[in-house]
Amino acid sequence: MNASNESVMNSTTATRREVSGQPPAREVTGGHSFEGRMLERLLERLGAPEIEFQLWTGERIAPVGCEPVCRVRIPSRGALLAILADHQVRFPDAYSEGRIEIEGDLVQLLETLYVAGARAPAPSGLGRLLGNLRRPHVNTLAGSRQNIHHHYDIGNEFYSLWLGETMAYTCAYYPSADATLDAAQHAKMDHVCRKMRLRPGETVVEAGCGWGTFALHMARHYGVKVRAFNISREQVAYARERAAREGLAGQVEYVQDDYRNITGRYDAFVSIGMLEHVGVENYEGLGAVVSRSLGDNGRGLIHSIGRNYPAPLQPWIEKRIFPGAYPASLGQMMRIFEPWDLSILDVENLRLHYAQTLRHWLALFEAAVPRVEQMFDARFVRMWRMYLAGSIAGFTTGTLQLFQVLFATRHNNEVPMTRAHLYT
Amino acid sequence: MNASNESVMNSTTATRREVSGQPPAREVTGGHSFEGRMLERLLERLGAPEIEFQLWTGERIAPVGCEPVCRVRIPSRGALLAILADHQVRFPDAYSEGRIEIEGDLVQLLETLYVAGARAPAPSGLGRLLGNLRRPHVNTLAGSRQNIHHHYDIGNEFYSLWLGETMAYTCAYYPSADATLDAAQHAKMDHVCRKMRLRPGETVVEAGCGWGTFALHMARHYGVKVRAFNISREQVAYARERAAREGLAGQVEYVQDDYRNITGRYDAFVSIGMLEHVGVENYEGLGAVVSRSLGDNGRGLIHSIGRNYPAPLQPWIEKRIFPGAYPASLGQMMRIFEPWDLSILDVENLRLHYAQTLRHWLALFEAAVPRVEQMFDARFVRMWRMYLAGSIAGFTTGTLQLFQVLFATRHNNEVPMTRAHLYT
Repeated sequence: MNASNESVMNSTTATRREVSGQPPAREVTGGHSFEGRMLERLLERLGAPEIEFQLWTGERIAPVGCEPVCRVRIPSRGALLAILADHQVRFPDAYSEGRIEIEGDLVQLLETLYVAGARAPAPSGLGRLLGNLRRPHVNTLAGSRQNIHHHYDIGNEFYSLWLGETMAYTCAYYPSADATLDAAQHAKMDHVCRKMRLRPGETVVEAGCGWGTFALHMARHYGVKVRAFNISREQVAYARERAAREGLAGQVEYVQDDYRNITGRYDAFVSIGMLEHVGVENYEGLGAVVSRSLGDNGRGLIHSIGRNYPAPLQPWIEKRIFPGAYPASLGQMMRIFEPWDLSILDVENLRLHYAQTLRHWLALFEAAVPRVEQMFDARFVRMWRMYLAGSIAGFTTGTLQLFQVLFATRHNNEVPMTRAHLYT
Repeated sequence: MNASNESVMNSTTATRREVSGQPPAREVTGGHSFEGRMLERLLERLGAPEIEFQLWTGERIAPVGCEPVCRVRIPSRGALLAILADHQVRFPDAYSEGRIEIEGDLVQLLETLYVAGARAPAPSGLGRLLGNLRRPHVNTLAGSRQNIHHHYDIGNEFYSLWLGETMAYTCAYYPSADATLDAAQHAKMDHVCRKMRLRPGETVVEAGCGWGTFALHMARHYGVKVRAFNISREQVAYARERAAREGLAGQVEYVQDDYRNITGRYDAFVSIGMLEHVGVENYEGLGAVVSRSLGDNGRGLIHSIGRNYPAPLQPWIEKRIFPGAYPASLGQMMRIFEPWDLSILDVENLRLHYAQTLRHWLALFEAAVPRVEQMFDARFVRMWRMYLAGSIAGFTTGTLQLFQVLFATRHNNEVPMTRAHLYT
């Protein structure tokens, strides 16, 4: 997985304790319609974000004592009623459909919502109940195929417009703030290979390989043999064609199959951006695959979007962008490793790198809007803009994290004493 | 806490899945007494360690097809019956009391037991039941005072014989394999300060400060003000005297109180080697203390012995060395952070550094044995040798881990993009 925007007008979950005080008051000008009062209440529940709302009635609902960060115009009763009924899904939907207008920076708007969300009161019992009634898409073998198809098979050309040269659709690593997207994606791949201390002649299994870039990078620059698994038909076709063109088909095998069907023994196991699609209920099973895939001196790395605490994926993202996806807390991720006596060597949180990666993606996306609109339509453009902008906000506000977890089999003492080798 | 030896003839727990095959067979020479057959059965349950046992009857019970790593002589029926009744406590007790003899290297013996233990079958229902009946010492406010008093108040002079100049009784950090103990302890303190990016004028609260060395180091080299909490009377007296002597009493305040009574707001929270004494049931409460102690750009570090998966402390260690102690898995440690929306930035596993630290301690301890025997007695010497040697084995075999967990408040974006600054 790549980037999943968190709470586009999200309420927080019951797992986190409340740590902040009361949200600030709001002022209403131009009358007090019933709908206006309902919107005020919703905004209170959302932690009173510093955003001004302008209704078709002429009402302005604005924060008191500070300038609003931006303005949202809701030009019809229908749009507001939809938002009031299910703001988490209908607000971003209304934006995608052009039924509301945003004046100001979309990323800032979403950051403001996130920061407010963090100080919002925990949802009521009813709110939690309704949240629990949402049924995310399941990750059975067949379910996962459908879920992955929904996102990754919408066209390789579309992704090539804004992912940069590497076609890497995961968080990059910026050794310096001014690194380009492509340089940062290469740096990420090297960072992961160095963490795993890959040596020529070794074998690696990759679970979820995207368009195959990382497998080729490992083969070319670290001299390893790679078997890379992926259930996205389009991605595997693209990756195979590329491996053949680059003369690496003998070193890299792409297997169009589920990670659960991985067989064989390898020196290392790696998975970049797949865990978000696995589902917590399958983590112990994933650990079984890791454990049976590794020899005595085995090690591996899992790179995934995560959370500070367990919380469901924002429902609009789950519904429109990433069906079946779930970013786990580090505690939840430990269910992969602990049952199998796998030893955690190193965890690095790269959330600010993902914000930067997404800024680069969004800029390329905006430059390609005319072409994207030709390929799809204006609604698709606004939907993806919302998703990318919301993801930036998720990472800058700490709503989302990015964990790289390096691990080894229990008795592996061939691990470096320090991490200095990563930085020389 | 410092170093807690794991399974001195330990059985493994139910939390870990079995990953290995059948233990090898054993050969018996010199007859088959009832006691000999019972010992054989015990050794099978322990994963058939490559150790030879010689009984008072003349029986030799040895591994088949390989040279034993070392020999244990059990010269009386009484000693064997005790071991058979409760090997986890009575085997190390018998060693401490001089009722058994070990021929060969004690660390190697214990490593062999650990490695065998990892391939041993999971304990039977009865074994688990008996394990659950053991009641470790509790960590209420009063219980913690007693537990800490038991270990840390046995005499500052004793500890000064083998901890080196720094009196730091926690895992050191060896930037190179040939670093001395004192250099490695200084490097550890700098490593932690750099991870936390301490700046002059900032304030730090330390939970569990030992003999006060780290608080002084932070004050002297990083220009911060420190309040350091500890419930060990002897340690606090020592630390205060030292701060005064070194002219740092204005910058460092030692408070003889429980971490639960920490008040005030600080830029950073640090705790090195206290978590082992907290108890998992108190982790969320510890997180509450951390959370209320930190401002918006707060960050901190917890350094603790840990596990690959949840398992009780080896019962002899819990009984004789560290009452109330428990090394947690990383998943369990997350109970400190997740309820409070604290963000994990970095986890580093230093288990091989603790093995090296312990080797240095054991060598200094052995050199001081005549003095220690004067201060206490021969039984005390053998008990501490068993504890230190077993701890080395715990870390070299991956039975124990050492985690440094760096964290920050959720909205803290003042964190460095990379960890390169730690290595330049």
